[in-house]
Amino acid sequence: MMLKSKDLLGLKDMAAEEIEHILETAKTMKYILTTNNKKTPHLQGKSIVTLFYENSTRTRLSFELASKYMSASSANVSASSSSVSKGETLIDTAKTIDMMGTDVIILRHPMSGAPHLIAKNVEASVINAGDGMNEHPTQALLDMFTIYEKRGSLKGMKVAIIGDILHSRVARSNIWGMMKLGAEVSVAGPTTLMPVGIEKSGVKVFSTIQEALIDADVVMGLRIQLERQKKGLFPTAREYSKFFGLDNKRLKFAKKDALVLHPGPVNRGLELSTHVVDGDQSCINEQVTNGVAVRMAILYLLTRRNSGENIN
Amino acid sequence: MMLKSKDLLGLKDMAAEEIEHILETAKTMKYILTTNNKKTPHLQGKSIVTLFYENSTRTRLSFELASKYMSASSANVSASSSSVSKGETLIDTAKTIDMMGTDVIILRHPMSGAPHLIAKNVEASVINAGDGMNEHPTQALLDMFTIYEKRGSLKGMKVAIIGDILHSRVARSNIWGMMKLGAEVSVAGPTTLMPVGIEKSGVKVFSTIQEALIDADVVMGLRIQLERQKKGLFPTAREYSKFFGLDNKRLKFAKKDALVLHPGPVNRGLELSTHVVDGDQSCINEQVTNGVAVRMAILYLLTRRNSGENIN
Amino acid sequence: MMLKSKDLLGLKDMAAEEIEHILETAKTMKYILTTNNKKTPHLQGKSIVTLFYENSTRTRLSFELASKYMSASSANVSASSSSVSKGETLIDTAKTIDMMGTDVIILRHPMSGAPHLIAKNVEASVINAGDGMNEHPTQALLDMFTIYEKRGSLKGMKVAIIGDILHSRVARSNIWGMMKLGAEVSVAGPTTLMPVGIEKSGVKVFSTIQEALIDADVVMGLRIQLERQKKGLFPTAREYSKFFGLDNKRLKFAKKDALVLHPGPVNRGLELSTHVVDGDQSCINEQVTNGVAVRMAILYLLTRRNSGENIN
Repeated sequence: MMLKSKDLLGLKDMAAEEIEHILETAKTMKYILTTNNKKTPHLQGKSIVTLFYENSTRTRLSFELASKYMSASSANVSASSSSVSKGETLIDTAKTIDMMGTDVIILRHPMSGAPHLIAKNVEASVINAGDGMNEHPTQALLDMFTIYEKRGSLKGMKVAIIGDILHSRVARSNIWGMMKLGAEVSVAGPTTLMPVGIEKSGVKVFSTIQEALIDADVVMGLRIQLERQKKGLFPTAREYSKFFGLDNKRLKFAKKDALVLHPGPVNRGLELSTHVVDGDQSCINEQVTNGVAVRMAILYLLTRRNSGENIN
Repeated sequence: MMLKSKDLLGLKDMAAEEIEHILETAKTMKYILTTNNKKTPHLQGKSIVTLFYENSTRTRLSFELASKYMSASSANVSASSSSVSKGETLIDTAKTIDMMGTDVIILRHPMSGAPHLIAKNVEASVINAGDGMNEHPTQALLDMFTIYEKRGSLKGMKVAIIGDILHSRVARSNIWGMMKLGAEVSVAGPTTLMPVGIEKSGVKVFSTIQEALIDADVVMGLRIQLERQKKGLFPTAREYSKFFGLDNKRLKFAKKDALVLHPGPVNRGLELSTHVVDGDQSCINEQVTNGVAVRMAILYLLTRRNSGENIN
Repeated sequence: MMLKSKDLLGLKDMAAEEIEHILETAKTMKYILTTNNKKTPHLQGKSIVTLFYENSTRTRLSFELASKYMSASSANVSASSSSVSKGETLIDTAKTIDMMGTDVIILRHPMSGAPHLIAKNVEASVINAGDGMNEHPTQALLDMFTIYEKRGSLKGMKVAIIGDILHSRVARSNIWGMMKLGAEVSVAGPTTLMPVGIEKSGVKVFSTIQEALIDADVVMGLRIQLERQKKGLFPTAREYSKFFGLDNKRLKFAKKDALVLHPGPVNRGLELSTHVVDGDQSCINEQVTNGVAVRMAILYLLTRRNSGENIN
């Protein structure tokens, strides 16, 4: 099976079977990743460039290592050192990278829709590594893979997402992706951080964390980005922690073996208590490994679109 | 055929046949670059380090990808993170890189002559990636390759270079290189940005863009670097655009199929109108691809100097 | 023979035979490094990440090239672009890198003991690339290798270390390492820069450079880091140079063929005169090459711990 689009821009418009194909391929990649010799020839002769207009060690490094494990030629461009400061347009910058023989451009950008704009203007595949407040599809895919691997399926899973839903591209991608695969998603967070009309997408909206957690198979905390909040609209860290912080006591509202996810980096004591982060139910460290596996799968599938080969 | 020097410092002192040999080798490299598998073993076991004291995504990335496509071990050093801030001399920094097994040092430096100084003090080959207001030979070679590939030869070609000739290392390298290969070069730009006595080098000097363009086979715009200009000596962006900006109307003074070149990044609407940048005659995107091919050729030829091998 | 620990944190707790094994392995690596083709498969399939919270071109580049010469997948993380600015703890950052399939984390950190803390919390091997005022073991190993290669042994060698002993992690690692291998170490420097009670470690302490140099086989200058000094406790550069700067006249107090070492970058005219830096007895450039060889040896030995293979 092949992906329909040359790009991975978001989960909103991706078919369920394509998502499942990525998750299946990621299983193979995780097997490779956890053996003694991680080097594979899957991307030999391919060129991958990360183009990041926002800082991110975690996502950038995950893509970089995924590329290198599969023998790609890879390079990083960050906004601070880029031609941006010389007044070049985003499209011209991307087109320049495209013309250097690049097969995949991985873009993080503070403006929603930037990867979609680029994708139309380059021959390379474009992967959205986070665009404004829109999507962060590879993060959602690694979250889904973590559930998929541990529970066999997303179907019928009750997933509670807690926190700043309004500003979270991780939440948006997960809501779209998980519902496509048959999960029930509920959200909870401060009312000022809840998108107006979100219930129309089919998620259940709660104003307390306890209600959202009842009977949940998966609890996902979101990173609180204090730097993003507008004055007066946002609770203080102390208030947030008091009403929406996940500790062991609150975790008991969920199913006994509920999985705890968080995209990281965690503000310990704010979104999650240290006991929860380091507890038995936490998948936070494994999510990082899964992130590399999922990105290997995506890079493999996008660069093999024209060859008809299939790893599975 | 082998290059005479261990270094590529500029085109002023390079023989015409050496330049042609680089252009011929770049043809082979472009063929490799545009196939499905770009990975070649040409630089296997060689080590390439970029040492940039000025920011440049475009040139640095072009060299980095060229190195990686040919399987070199490559690494980047930028001034901001370098020992420079610790008071080390440029020679000592370069010597340190040299002693780490480095085969090629690619240097960009704000002082004219810096690569020449380094070249005398290291065993590695030194490539000048732009030194002050002196030369930028790999940019000129990719410009020449673009003409060479499309027209078969530089001989008799009429090339018009428009803009800030005074501060342009691209212009200087192109003037020397193109005239060696038999092109006729004319220049036009604001009189305050025209080097005194430039006509002695054999170029024709015009004070209007229209005169310079008459009958031209190639029109090259140069990047206006407003940050470099001294107060009062330089026209405003509006004035520059009014008198020297290249739009479709002015382009008609040149030959009907004249090639339009620009080293990039373009200030759209300043040096070139958007219609010209994106028009049929524009080679700007292809120049980027050619830049990688030319740099692959140069890296190949410099690192194979002692082995007697030849790709052609 | 295998290293006992999964990590290389310092020389204080390393056995003499382990140090000798690293030096022996480095001989093989130096041979590889100085051949025409430096690429070896020793780290194929291994992943190496540098995590630097302090700037260092020299050490970072040395590790990066060592990794690449041995075909590892390698990536760099620097503090400025890392999650540190997002408030993540050092342990969480390291754990994240660990979970991405990383086999070796190379850490430089301004706090003494940081690598030891990390080592307990990750599965990857941790190499200390300098921690606060504690140790810089790979620098000391390359210093020792330089003597070992030129003199055949450290045993009975008289080594004089001159300068800011108090703040120097290079001095601390060398004192511990060299004494284990049977060298006699003497130190000299301004009294305000001499650790209280250092004589208990077995080194001889002198207050003039001349006394320390008498009959020395090796003279090591240390970098003066003016930015570290507290007001009033430290001599001016002029005073330091006058009393402790090494020039050809003072060098005559040492043995006729004494080796001159310095970790670099040298402040010419401060710790060492330019004549000494560039003189026949100087090993400063060769130390850089040896640094890559020693780091190749360490990376090789740490990643081969479980396989029982041995290069010698």
